[in-house]
Amino acid sequence: MPLSANAAPQVDPTPIFEIFRGSYATEILTAAVAHFNVFGRLAQQPMTAAELGQSLGVAERPRIVLLTALRSFGLLTCDAQGRLHLTDLAREHLLPGGPFDVGDYVGLAANSPGVLEMVERLRSNRPASHAAGVAFIFREGVVSAMEDEAAARHFTNALAGRAKNVAPVLAERVDLASAKLLVDVGGGTGIYSIAFLQKNPDLCAIVLDRPEVLKVAQELARAYGVADRLQTQPADMFRDSLPKDADAVLLSNILHDWDVPECRTLIARSAASLRSGGQLLIHDVFLNDALDGPFPIALYSAALFCLTEGRAYSAAEYRGWLSEAGLTTGEVTPTLIHCGVLAGCKK
Amino acid sequence: MPLSANAAPQVDPTPIFEIFRGSYATEILTAAVAHFNVFGRLAQQPMTAAELGQSLGVAERPRIVLLTALRSFGLLTCDAQGRLHLTDLAREHLLPGGPFDVGDYVGLAANSPGVLEMVERLRSNRPASHAAGVAFIFREGVVSAMEDEAAARHFTNALAGRAKNVAPVLAERVDLASAKLLVDVGGGTGIYSIAFLQKNPDLCAIVLDRPEVLKVAQELARAYGVADRLQTQPADMFRDSLPKDADAVLLSNILHDWDVPECRTLIARSAASLRSGGQLLIHDVFLNDALDGPFPIALYSAALFCLTEGRAYSAAEYRGWLSEAGLTTGEVTPTLIHCGVLAGCKK
Repeated sequence: MPLSANAAPQVDPTPIFEIFRGSYATEILTAAVAHFNVFGRLAQQPMTAAELGQSLGVAERPRIVLLTALRSFGLLTCDAQGRLHLTDLAREHLLPGGPFDVGDYVGLAANSPGVLEMVERLRSNRPASHAAGVAFIFREGVVSAMEDEAAARHFTNALAGRAKNVAPVLAERVDLASAKLLVDVGGGTGIYSIAFLQKNPDLCAIVLDRPEVLKVAQELARAYGVADRLQTQPADMFRDSLPKDADAVLLSNILHDWDVPECRTLIARSAASLRSGGQLLIHDVFLNDALDGPFPIALYSAALFCLTEGRAYSAAEYRGWLSEAGLTTGEVTPTLIHCGVLAGCKK
Repeated sequence: MPLSANAAPQVDPTPIFEIFRGSYATEILTAAVAHFNVFGRLAQQPMTAAELGQSLGVAERPRIVLLTALRSFGLLTCDAQGRLHLTDLAREHLLPGGPFDVGDYVGLAANSPGVLEMVERLRSNRPASHAAGVAFIFREGVVSAMEDEAAARHFTNALAGRAKNVAPVLAERVDLASAKLLVDVGGGTGIYSIAFLQKNPDLCAIVLDRPEVLKVAQELARAYGVADRLQTQPADMFRDSLPKDADAVLLSNILHDWDVPECRTLIARSAASLRSGGQLLIHDVFLNDALDGPFPIALYSAALFCLTEGRAYSAAEYRGWLSEAGLTTGEVTPTLIHCGVLAGCKK
């Protein structure tokens, strides 16, 4: 009897992920207070995000990660002219030398390894490295753990713990009843494709990923009884040609691993893979369009920032790139564990 | 014009402390999942806390810190017979091998420095060491940063950032109008005494602490204009005789630095210092009497556990020790930043 990828969990596991990511709150707050003097700088004069980033010596991606988190913490606000200001909370409690300043208390963690690592990531704009290379992501020219059999299996299976919870909900909420071909770009274990295949008997799927990762996908396709309709295709998604005439292309928790130019490339390449009328499915987390939260996504964005070349993006950012690629977009449909799906339709 | 310690902050700084302590959630969760297999053990059979502690190889203090946090996370419950059970959340998502298990995802942080440090603290039941010795606490025979002038000043001032917010609220909520002598045991900067002195013109205070710490208290007493009524007395609070016939003895954020035997000793010694009808003021944070939260106090308890020989205690625990010392107790009056005051009255 094959396993089912269409049964959703009984209990929402989201709280576990929120508890798990608490360290990023500690690290961002302490880095801002004790290493970057964010509040002291802004007290002298309000600045735009770009001006503050320049003053801090950090690039655009770390700047967005840092400021999104601080805004979600209730410490910074942004006025209509795009200038950042201290909130009353930050002004009273995080301005060096004020009578109710708790900055030195926060600074007690200034030299903890996690904080120092965050500071290094923010300054360098480079992800942390695993012993076998950068984890989770692959691109030509960067040593990646995903090319090493044991490491690729380890990371792929660990990530699948989350994906197995979300996949049934995604397959339930996105209608692929009339679709024939799903292309799953960077599909990992293929669990999202497997859930769609079990839900839609006429569907076939092609999962694209690195060769070592696809070994796991092939095992799962057999265990879930969909090996006859699930094809794996080793690929560098930035360089190799993608299948044509897809009814749907899925980018599930892929774009958050990459910086803006790569996101635009992947969206354009995915759009080119669609037939007319087909849909590009961006399944991911979404920051508020104002890039000021929500709090749990701001922390996850910090995690993504530290571990990959990406961060969390807003629906507005994704809509802009989908529109550039000639796709029309609708609303985000929530799935599970902070995720949702935004579809772009090819005319 | 002297400074005022009677003006409370306009904005509640509590959110900053909750954000700051997020790392303890990450560390406790990951330690429980990836190093102690807490959920796998309890799935085999429910156990009492003592049985689980034995199975984990951890002493009573780390066991309470760990289990209080896991209960506050919604992962464990306790039945009427005192046996711990998995909640539905933990059973579905943290049992190794289950279809919706996210334990391997959590395990991605298993070897981060913060998690490894937490595991070492839990196993050893010993606080982390600063370059100049254990921070924050002093007792005979243990090298303490509080005996080093620069380190003592640094830690004392950093902690005062919190105390300066709380002191005006404490002085407002505890009536010492008819008191003549306040004894402030381990008073640090003396900021709590200073707030009481400014509020109550007939009051005198004696602040007991280590000599290097008291240098800071003397400076503050002058700056706040109460040097004529604030006396400092260098002391080892566990060994040296305390002043007699006090109207009030204050233990403000002191007991949470110490394990149970030291708490009982300090409470007994403080009670002996009181005149008949005087009150012992325990100003501290309070766990729920069931030791199952609240979440922010469970995280603070983990912080105290890692940095000192203590943890957070419940009002029920404090009431037991006050009663042993012959004092009668009332309710906890909240102050600020998770703190409250519990008074014990000497017959």
